[in-house]
Amino acid sequence: METLLLNGTDVRENASMTDLVPAVEDAFAAFERGDAQMPPKSYIDLPEYNGDFRSMPAYLDAGTWDAAGVKWVNVHPDNPEKFGFPTVLGTMIYSDPETAVPLSIMDGRELTMLRTGAAAAVATDHLAVPDATSLGIVGAGAQSYTQLRAIAEVRDIETVVISDLDEERVAKFVAEFEGEYDVRAGSISEVASCDVLSTVTPVESPIVARDDVGAHTHVNAMGADATGKHELADQILLDSKLVIDDYEQTTHSGEINVPWSEGVLDDDDIYGSVGQIVTGSKDGRTDADGISVFDSTGLAIQDVAAAHVVYEHATEKGNGYAFDLLGLA
Amino acid sequence: METLLLNGTDVRENASMTDLVPAVEDAFAAFERGDAQMPPKSYIDLPEYNGDFRSMPAYLDAGTWDAAGVKWVNVHPDNPEKFGFPTVLGTMIYSDPETAVPLSIMDGRELTMLRTGAAAAVATDHLAVPDATSLGIVGAGAQSYTQLRAIAEVRDIETVVISDLDEERVAKFVAEFEGEYDVRAGSISEVASCDVLSTVTPVESPIVARDDVGAHTHVNAMGADATGKHELADQILLDSKLVIDDYEQTTHSGEINVPWSEGVLDDDDIYGSVGQIVTGSKDGRTDADGISVFDSTGLAIQDVAAAHVVYEHATEKGNGYAFDLLGLA
Repeated sequence: METLLLNGTDVRENASMTDLVPAVEDAFAAFERGDAQMPPKSYIDLPEYNGDFRSMPAYLDAGTWDAAGVKWVNVHPDNPEKFGFPTVLGTMIYSDPETAVPLSIMDGRELTMLRTGAAAAVATDHLAVPDATSLGIVGAGAQSYTQLRAIAEVRDIETVVISDLDEERVAKFVAEFEGEYDVRAGSISEVASCDVLSTVTPVESPIVARDDVGAHTHVNAMGADATGKHELADQILLDSKLVIDDYEQTTHSGEINVPWSEGVLDDDDIYGSVGQIVTGSKDGRTDADGISVFDSTGLAIQDVAAAHVVYEHATEKGNGYAFDLLGLA
Repeated sequence: METLLLNGTDVRENASMTDLVPAVEDAFAAFERGDAQMPPKSYIDLPEYNGDFRSMPAYLDAGTWDAAGVKWVNVHPDNPEKFGFPTVLGTMIYSDPETAVPLSIMDGRELTMLRTGAAAAVATDHLAVPDATSLGIVGAGAQSYTQLRAIAEVRDIETVVISDLDEERVAKFVAEFEGEYDVRAGSISEVASCDVLSTVTPVESPIVARDDVGAHTHVNAMGADATGKHELADQILLDSKLVIDDYEQTTHSGEINVPWSEGVLDDDDIYGSVGQIVTGSKDGRTDADGISVFDSTGLAIQDVAAAHVVYEHATEKGNGYAFDLLGLA
């Protein structure tokens, strides 16, 4: 019994967004139906290294497939400058739920970016205007690429506007996509008036103002992942159809955590969860809706669903390196 | 930056008990001093497969070294009969705390057996009579081997008596060790009257009676790892110097969990933790002591400490297979 090792390139090459987006939608649905298990993330804080580790175990039963695993991920902001490593790394163990055999061990960093893009696409599919053609992105880091790749699966995106203080990052993003889209740099207000907006920054003071946002824009608020972080002005949240991925995680560390803890926003301001929408127990966008916001913190079930897709593809194509980790022969 | 893959054989060959026992002692001490982080184990129960997964993340700072990681482990009792796999498998991700780079991924099954043996040895070192020469073991499964290997590091064991209903297992154990020790099969009372007794069975009704145990025997109760399991008669616990590894874990799923939940045993019956003993804040065995018992449930810090030893040895010897999991080159 061998374990398939998949590095970042293998993960990227085997994570077709065409399969990944529905798999993540299946995961949200399974979670909503109660067919998933996702213990709270466990944190290990290492102030001496200005970093932390998080373990994210999950199981989900999507009906035609099920999957289990754990992602071990971290945030080490000093990594780029001190060591030349990314701030966020990650390792995913993907296991057979029936036998617990570790079917695959894969790069969790690439997986995180891909499943985060896929989550935005699921929300966009249900919450953006049906004829959306423009996508704005605030933040031109690693996450911006998978936002575009994924959202283009669910809407016919023609125009992409990107905003980032770092001009080099913007140029790199534009160069990557200029053959496929009408892509250009723009101000926050140009970006935020697109049909779909994704924010993927780690800021602690909102950078998108209420007036920036288009009347019917759907916003994927992807950046906030810790207490104190938020990207959108409170009034955007208060005026929107506000959808979350998970109540505990979003009130603790999602886009809504700051106004929530300040009492600016409460339960009544939350329309529902993405799981309720994908299972049909609550409506997605209706003609009456203006702005919609998806507050995404990232769920362990997304990782497990994405790992499932990657493993199935890689096995089929014969990618990766098979290693006898258990020695059970 | 490559990740060192170590299979079961690699783990075994690089886990010298001479280094492992003090490393696990260091881990208990770090935990007691507050220099370790160990969030509660997260469980995923899969009744449809009669199994479960547990994630066990930890960090510890032993002073001269520190270590972080997560073990992903399971209990699938149908594995042997249905699939020819062991009931318990496991995978360990061992990470650099400073950068979060996964330094090594190793077989967690072998690691579990080794660190469990090492924990028994640490307790035995502090709680058995100094001139102990006989070791009794109840249960001749995989854990029995590492009990003997580890305990022989801290006492001059000459005689080993083993008891198990499965004669084939007993014969295999005897064959393994007969060149090194005076080793033989024996009844429970013969086994339990040795200077040191280790119990490594998954039973739910005690199999060692009060009268079986020698007047000064030190007992390592290693088998109980879930609510409802216990191996020793309540009276043994009540009459002993009772030492635990962790209060939450032992009262929930350790040897003491059944009498605890029934109110037969309470806080006053617990002498202290192994961490208190190794740091010197409480005495180990004194001349006044009769029976002593160590209730071991197994802590994530033991895994991290053991992984540290294995990784350091394997790196030094050039063992294992280096794989570019991150692709950061």
